[in-house]
Amino acid sequence: VKVSELGEFGLIARLTDELSVQTAAADGLWLGIGDDAAVWGSAGGAHIATTDTMVADVHFPAGSVSWRDLGWKALATNVSDIAAMGGTPEYALVTLALPGDFLVEAVLDLYEGLVEAGEAYGVTVAGGDVVRSPVFVVTVALSGRAELDEAGRPVVLRRDAASAGDLVTVTGALGGSAGGLLVLTGGADAEGEARERLVDAHMRPQARLDVGRAALAAGVRCAIDLSDGLLQDLGHVCEAGGLGASVWAEKVPVSPWLYQVVPSEEALRLAVSGGEDYELLFIGSEEQVESVRRQVALPVTVVGEMVVDPQRRVQLLDEAGRSMELAAMGWDHFAGQRGR
Amino acid sequence: VKVSELGEFGLIARLTDELSVQTAAADGLWLGIGDDAAVWGSAGGAHIATTDTMVADVHFPAGSVSWRDLGWKALATNVSDIAAMGGTPEYALVTLALPGDFLVEAVLDLYEGLVEAGEAYGVTVAGGDVVRSPVFVVTVALSGRAELDEAGRPVVLRRDAASAGDLVTVTGALGGSAGGLLVLTGGADAEGEARERLVDAHMRPQARLDVGRAALAAGVRCAIDLSDGLLQDLGHVCEAGGLGASVWAEKVPVSPWLYQVVPSEEALRLAVSGGEDYELLFIGSEEQVESVRRQVALPVTVVGEMVVDPQRRVQLLDEAGRSMELAAMGWDHFAGQRGR
Repeated sequence: VKVSELGEFGLIARLTDELSVQTAAADGLWLGIGDDAAVWGSAGGAHIATTDTMVADVHFPAGSVSWRDLGWKALATNVSDIAAMGGTPEYALVTLALPGDFLVEAVLDLYEGLVEAGEAYGVTVAGGDVVRSPVFVVTVALSGRAELDEAGRPVVLRRDAASAGDLVTVTGALGGSAGGLLVLTGGADAEGEARERLVDAHMRPQARLDVGRAALAAGVRCAIDLSDGLLQDLGHVCEAGGLGASVWAEKVPVSPWLYQVVPSEEALRLAVSGGEDYELLFIGSEEQVESVRRQVALPVTVVGEMVVDPQRRVQLLDEAGRSMELAAMGWDHFAGQRGR
Repeated sequence: VKVSELGEFGLIARLTDELSVQTAAADGLWLGIGDDAAVWGSAGGAHIATTDTMVADVHFPAGSVSWRDLGWKALATNVSDIAAMGGTPEYALVTLALPGDFLVEAVLDLYEGLVEAGEAYGVTVAGGDVVRSPVFVVTVALSGRAELDEAGRPVVLRRDAASAGDLVTVTGALGGSAGGLLVLTGGADAEGEARERLVDAHMRPQARLDVGRAALAAGVRCAIDLSDGLLQDLGHVCEAGGLGASVWAEKVPVSPWLYQVVPSEEALRLAVSGGEDYELLFIGSEEQVESVRRQVALPVTVVGEMVVDPQRRVQLLDEAGRSMELAAMGWDHFAGQRGR
């Protein structure tokens, strides 16, 4: 069986099912494979760690991006995973796999972007590895700390902590990143501010550390960052929690800049399935959502609710409550196409 | 300037020189870029982290190795970096970059090797990332803890802590890994036990956690693991400490299996420059070396001494004390050839 037939999530499921790879509490491990980050206890604290990789021409169009922006993005996407746990990032290890003819100046630009993001999010680049490779790959492993409760146990935002009736809430606007990718790859035309905003949404994602901490403080216990697209990431929450979810299409905060480059139905499709917005999706009660809204400057929008559904479906509903067909899901790294 | 012109170590030097990448104590960081692993303080303890990457057909001949062995090696080489700090490994994040036609069975085999090494060294695989890539890459990021002194400060084995007059000491036998690579790639013929021992030396390196801890307990403060080859790794110690070193050729513990596949001068060359033995090189006083020898079962061999040398040279000396020419150094990942 080829990994492309199984897909990313199928492969991870087989790894966790068939091997003694830890997914549950064991030897101080509080949270293992299957969430945004792993959490383990250590003397006097709780440790969070996550890792994310970008491969040239798989995760970004190598000829069309600034290496400095790519450095920013490589770190910011990892910070976003820690934000989605309500944690605080601290130290990063950076691995670069580089072709021999890669330019030293590009490496320095990339590192400037990494260090810039590090300064923005309080992360120190503590080490890493540099190796030769036929293709450019950047991997960041990011460590941080989790909040502790009064009993000294880690408290984090998890994927599996939703309840039926909880509100599905997102920060910021969605789809801008997918629009930026379209612009970068020539799939859409944009100039001036629209171009700049969309490309920035794709290359300079903002990790929502403040929202993650505010949500935790408000009593929220369920969150995920939007890396694969709203419908697919919400699908991970449904899968983990044994629930379904309804998303109300007219409530989705579509990036206003998208309407300048694609028709409005396509804008909605990109907003719910485009991926890489790195906004925070969190799930809680009305009171908890209100509390988060009061604590942060960013727009906080309720887009749906968790429902009882043994089939764990995510449904996108129109204004009349009818299921919409464009629930065409997010991105599978192996399938290489949208669709589960 | 291309990275191949600068080489791995030149590139790392430019990154640390020209950017505000942390190399020294800052914000709780005790040890940054330039040692086997990074060390930082955290509430109630000290944290060690390291990362290592293997790229198919750069770091291993993809068609000739067992994926299970490769999984073992991917984790064991990282454990070796923590051993070289005198620390204890705890949790690993594993990133796999895989071509779409890569076989799921091979991924499962690889993970079995990872989990096997995890059980051997007390490491839990806590998470990771799986991405699509035109070339196979495995990256392990490994976390652990450092020993603390009575004042609660981290105590580790560092590269820069040698003194003139200290003895240069290695564990085990050297060159077997390079011999195994020769056998795997058809550069040398071997059968039966010789083949098995040499291939095992290359694919199943043993991390020397017990030696690292014994050295720390004996008062040793300087060590590095042998990944690039004795002469080159000792060169890193000289560079970091501002010293030179003499290695006595006749004292080098050459793997006995090597003599079955290459002439004896070539065996010595592989033992001092072959790389990937993952034995421990530590530097200390005669009393400290004796103390380590009493604590561990493994052979512990004094192969040279640290000397005053403003040029920071590593010299390989014959029995008459003459400098030998085969000091042709270790492996540079970008230069793609032996020679500095």
